[in-house]
Amino acid sequence: MSIKEEALQAHRVRHGKLEIATKMPLNNKHDLELAYTPGVAEPCKEIAKDKEKAYEYTIKGSTVAIVTNGTAVLGLGNIGPEGGLPVIEGKALLLKKFGNVNAFPICIDSLDPDEIVRTIQVIAPGFGGIHLEDIKAPECFYIEDKLKETLNIPVYHDDQHGTAVAVLAGLHNAMKIVDKSLDSMRIVINGAGASGIAIAKLLLAAGARHMVLCDINGAISENTGSMNEAHQRIAKVTNRDFETGTLEDIIKGKDVFIGVSVEGVLTKKMVQTMNPDCIIFALANPVPEIMPEEAIKGGARIVATGRSDYPNQINNLLVFPGIFRGALDARVRNITDEMKLAAAQGIADLVNDEELNENYIVPDAFDKRPSIAVSEAVIRIARKTGVSRI
Amino acid sequence: MSIKEEALQAHRVRHGKLEIATKMPLNNKHDLELAYTPGVAEPCKEIAKDKEKAYEYTIKGSTVAIVTNGTAVLGLGNIGPEGGLPVIEGKALLLKKFGNVNAFPICIDSLDPDEIVRTIQVIAPGFGGIHLEDIKAPECFYIEDKLKETLNIPVYHDDQHGTAVAVLAGLHNAMKIVDKSLDSMRIVINGAGASGIAIAKLLLAAGARHMVLCDINGAISENTGSMNEAHQRIAKVTNRDFETGTLEDIIKGKDVFIGVSVEGVLTKKMVQTMNPDCIIFALANPVPEIMPEEAIKGGARIVATGRSDYPNQINNLLVFPGIFRGALDARVRNITDEMKLAAAQGIADLVNDEELNENYIVPDAFDKRPSIAVSEAVIRIARKTGVSRI
Repeated sequence: MSIKEEALQAHRVRHGKLEIATKMPLNNKHDLELAYTPGVAEPCKEIAKDKEKAYEYTIKGSTVAIVTNGTAVLGLGNIGPEGGLPVIEGKALLLKKFGNVNAFPICIDSLDPDEIVRTIQVIAPGFGGIHLEDIKAPECFYIEDKLKETLNIPVYHDDQHGTAVAVLAGLHNAMKIVDKSLDSMRIVINGAGASGIAIAKLLLAAGARHMVLCDINGAISENTGSMNEAHQRIAKVTNRDFETGTLEDIIKGKDVFIGVSVEGVLTKKMVQTMNPDCIIFALANPVPEIMPEEAIKGGARIVATGRSDYPNQINNLLVFPGIFRGALDARVRNITDEMKLAAAQGIADLVNDEELNENYIVPDAFDKRPSIAVSEAVIRIARKTGVSRI
Repeated sequence: MSIKEEALQAHRVRHGKLEIATKMPLNNKHDLELAYTPGVAEPCKEIAKDKEKAYEYTIKGSTVAIVTNGTAVLGLGNIGPEGGLPVIEGKALLLKKFGNVNAFPICIDSLDPDEIVRTIQVIAPGFGGIHLEDIKAPECFYIEDKLKETLNIPVYHDDQHGTAVAVLAGLHNAMKIVDKSLDSMRIVINGAGASGIAIAKLLLAAGARHMVLCDINGAISENTGSMNEAHQRIAKVTNRDFETGTLEDIIKGKDVFIGVSVEGVLTKKMVQTMNPDCIIFALANPVPEIMPEEAIKGGARIVATGRSDYPNQINNLLVFPGIFRGALDARVRNITDEMKLAAAQGIADLVNDEELNENYIVPDAFDKRPSIAVSEAVIRIARKTGVSRI
């Protein structure tokens, strides 16, 4: 049976991937009196006096909502809220297995950013965090920003920040091998959606100085004509040489290509125009911007993809379970850039100098250490910056 | 330790009563490829083609949302969405244990009925049903009606229908003992909130003809002045003799008292004015409208309460797990009156003629048979009326 057939069957026979489990016994009348009436009135009354007590007496403090409207699902595009459900169930499965976080999928039947924001605000009291997933750009930026402004629980869009942290982790170790520094490397990011813009922002925060974003129309610069607000903002802090042209023009003389776009847009010939010891992160799924063999033939020193069947899989799974484990444990209100930077470093540091080589720049996606390293990084920064509430 | 202290501790040490469990293994890369990328794209694509397939490939078909805004929690009133969370977690626990239904608590931070409706509509795609809980009247009627009109999954307000079905089940057996019939008995319902009105409607559907609802201002009739819409509607089909006055006036010559109001409003003296062999369901929680001993002294033949420490506990737990188990199994779009009537009869029939007596009119709350009887009743009616979709 093919993976496709097997995946369909695995979902069908189980009717999905999650279920609700109970943490309190219910074997006799006494149990019932504790879990339900009359006993349940006591935690209700405590919380009524002080909402913060919900963290103590309910699932709030251990539970996040994974929210999608299904507008940017994997490589499938806008397939609706029900269509996105298998993915966010999968994310919930991974959050449980890798972060011991209870995550529940919420499918949002709306395309209106303000309505999406309001819906999440209205259902927020029962959750300890909001994990946004597969919501298309530029709406995802607005939604995340508004929620961060208004909610007192952490809000995290995995397509943005999970990808950005995983990329930065890989880049830390790739730079070690080629002996280049983040502030000196010339970087092209191809794809200016949620992931591309988030990667750009995090690399800037990490110290990158020379970076050009490209989309299907070529390089994005302050001089580019009509752009959405997200592009306008990122154009102000990237491409300070005001480069113009297609990816083929822009890629010349660059040290790093980071692709979060579509299959096949990078050719061997284009790689040949890059600087020596160049680094290629071709993260389009399931087929990358360039196949690793081709990139190597073009002169790339290090190639990473999103695939498990090639070395150097840059996978959000390295990141998000630990992010929420740490955020819940420290009960932070925000997941800050400083936490994300520490998380990326924490993942990179798991590959020691003896292990590090062109084909091993990040831990395996199935390694459980990254989640722990990431959660520890989040907690450490939360304490250091005084935002831990525990 | 008192029940109160023990309940607080039981909630605190566990941080609530629920957690997420996983139904798919995740022990190696192959498992990951099935549950997540690339395999997960297959169910996504199937559902994108046909939304109904969500029942097959996701948790939708086995999962309900338990939704509260915390405005009418137990005897505590409006204690906010977080305050209501322990109760709806408890309901989820009971749905799992008694109905094998996966229920997830959703706390709604809104008092605006239209916003509550819209929020539930927006998050509905991921759920197979909506269980409304502890939302105050009259808003609860509007919310339930609007959702029923617009959603294609069953919507059920437990404070209304769970209570009504449990009351009718108890009344079926109480009538047998006193040898009276529903259409001939004169019934007073004290309390005209969500439960009181729902009980009135279901008893009418079951054949009751002589019924007066009272609230704090006395009997509700078509001639009563300013009333909310729910009261206006119920006044058109009850109290056809246009009785007026306080509960003390109205109770005279009645066969049945059903209290869903507050402690102590019914006195022994008032019971003495009722008909011989009268039936008292004093369901205020935790302290009933009259204590059973007093009611018996006043001449009542059968007394039921909501309490587990007295005989004849009229408890929604007899009803809601089976309602949702049946509704999900038959994949119905609505829980109809006919299903509720059959559910009540199904519960009543569990007490056989040898067992039936003044102190045993309904099965014990901890009996697992009612859930099965109720789910079977729902499925039977769904098939009979052609609304089963499986």
